[in-house]
Amino acid sequence: MSEDDIDLVLPALKPPDEAVRLQAQARIDLLTKPTGSLGRLEEVAANYLAITGNVAAPRLDPVVFTLAADHGVTAEGVSAYPSSVTAQMVKNFVHGGAAVNVLARHAEASLRLVDMGVAEDLRACAGLLDHKIAYGTKNFVREPAMSREQALQSIQVGMDLAKAACADGKNLIAVGEMGIGNTTSSAAVVSVLTGQSVEQVTGRGTGVDEQTLKRKISVIEQALALHHPSSSDAIEVLTKVGGFEIGGMAGLMLGAAACRVPVVLDGFITGASALLAVALESRCRDYLIASHVSLEPGHRIVLDHLRLEPLLDLQMRLGEGTGACLAATLIHAALKIYRDMATFEEARVSGALPQS
Amino acid sequence: MSEDDIDLVLPALKPPDEAVRLQAQARIDLLTKPTGSLGRLEEVAANYLAITGNVAAPRLDPVVFTLAADHGVTAEGVSAYPSSVTAQMVKNFVHGGAAVNVLARHAEASLRLVDMGVAEDLRACAGLLDHKIAYGTKNFVREPAMSREQALQSIQVGMDLAKAACADGKNLIAVGEMGIGNTTSSAAVVSVLTGQSVEQVTGRGTGVDEQTLKRKISVIEQALALHHPSSSDAIEVLTKVGGFEIGGMAGLMLGAAACRVPVVLDGFITGASALLAVALESRCRDYLIASHVSLEPGHRIVLDHLRLEPLLDLQMRLGEGTGACLAATLIHAALKIYRDMATFEEARVSGALPQS
Repeated sequence: MSEDDIDLVLPALKPPDEAVRLQAQARIDLLTKPTGSLGRLEEVAANYLAITGNVAAPRLDPVVFTLAADHGVTAEGVSAYPSSVTAQMVKNFVHGGAAVNVLARHAEASLRLVDMGVAEDLRACAGLLDHKIAYGTKNFVREPAMSREQALQSIQVGMDLAKAACADGKNLIAVGEMGIGNTTSSAAVVSVLTGQSVEQVTGRGTGVDEQTLKRKISVIEQALALHHPSSSDAIEVLTKVGGFEIGGMAGLMLGAAACRVPVVLDGFITGASALLAVALESRCRDYLIASHVSLEPGHRIVLDHLRLEPLLDLQMRLGEGTGACLAATLIHAALKIYRDMATFEEARVSGALPQS
Repeated sequence: MSEDDIDLVLPALKPPDEAVRLQAQARIDLLTKPTGSLGRLEEVAANYLAITGNVAAPRLDPVVFTLAADHGVTAEGVSAYPSSVTAQMVKNFVHGGAAVNVLARHAEASLRLVDMGVAEDLRACAGLLDHKIAYGTKNFVREPAMSREQALQSIQVGMDLAKAACADGKNLIAVGEMGIGNTTSSAAVVSVLTGQSVEQVTGRGTGVDEQTLKRKISVIEQALALHHPSSSDAIEVLTKVGGFEIGGMAGLMLGAAACRVPVVLDGFITGASALLAVALESRCRDYLIASHVSLEPGHRIVLDHLRLEPLLDLQMRLGEGTGACLAATLIHAALKIYRDMATFEEARVSGALPQS
């Protein structure tokens, strides 16, 4: 797939700065604690700095993007909730009553709510960014979820949002989503891009029963048999079985990486977006931080495929960006440790003894 | 062991209020999210409220107690650091430069530093609570670590500190410690109280090499062979192979539980204290929250024995209360979710569909 073909200028990503990672770890080793004793907090701090390419830890100023869109495939009865809940939940976000509102405040993160394609006119919602591509995707069991142009547009919107946030000084981008039906779309994307069977990557989403789960699997299998999306063409996968918020989050990841700003993933749906982003530009993977592993069985498969180890396992499966917010508090902690702890020399503490 | 015998009035603990737990879970199920989708955060909130016996979630006001003491057994060369590091680190705590200072601030917790038995005169340290029982324990390979009176005193100090903090409005007590040599003492306590072999519960502490680890195991085995502490007498275990901070933290747990205030554990050493507290009053177990599982191999054994599932696994092994602070941020989050999220009715969001 060439850039001409897709009319989308992907960023040329640099790898994280390994010299900065080593310098950061060297400073961490001078702090008043046994070497390595803060475990993954140390790794998170050094990785954050390597990504930004700057050995000086900034004050963390995170932004959570919660992207909302609807899915035509809900007509097949694959979700425990009606499609109208997407718009209702967007209004709940706007009024500050959802889990992601509470946890974004907890993580000292600003929250940006984006209509990528909700099946209701939400232009009257103050505080909602209007990037609606269409009133929901098409039912992908019958036809492609969207046109190729719409797929490209969704990614472009995400890239532009990320770049604007980074220009605004945001130095951590957390991604989240809301969209009834989007675990169905994500399972389809994940099956194609990881090569795992639909059954292995499909779970209960918001909480469907056994019979609905079987129908969900069968719907995805039918769609993949109909469209045969090529695993080597991420845009085709997004077009045939994706969603507007799924494309948008892939764009956020690419845009943040272009600005050397780390991205915190959330649950399974953000994992589908990450697979798309990494398929488009493999170096994007190095900019991703896995917040948690969700109860959705395909999520671990995605994280393993991306070689990412989640920071948390709290048996969550909510989405919206909630897991990403909790991980953001750990990233705050890691950078505070790096910045604020005394060294052995400053504190006049003796180092380790020669042993044995 | 009777109370007369030990001259220590243990609190009569009530079990958590299961009616409150059910009421709390019922409210959580009304919030705008799929049922159960916040996983362990939901469990943490309901458990917190059941412990306090009040279905109204308070604003969390945590306190971290970091208890310091020295250990005579360091004469056997069981640690990577000299004993003098205990006092040096206490001064680092007092000046705000250690990991627990940074993470307590991050968790919006106050930090109380207590000299339980550091082998140096620290009365000139402003901000350090002086409850020194002795200038370190005795070398328990040769003689009991402390007298029975000192063991009782250490527990009493902890109980009194907890009760004063609770009277002061603190509604979460996090425990932590500093004491060169205290993983050796803890491994001895844990081996006796769990019935596991010394080899299984002994790890590298601050980071000893293979040869020192072997010596550490052998030292503990010798001590247990010498003293034969009875697993049915927790005070005897503390007397023979314990430490002043280990007894103090057991007292903190008992005192907090008496006030119906939850206790957040930290790493392996706090686990040894928890075993002692639960041996003295089995209901204390229900007041304990496991923050993380450390790299110290005996820690998982302790948590399994107490039937506690840690919230975090970040490959940490620092102590001081650092893991407890990180878990406190999750408890903050859980209570905010409980208090601040909108219900389906308030937000006018539709509930789940009848399925299949």
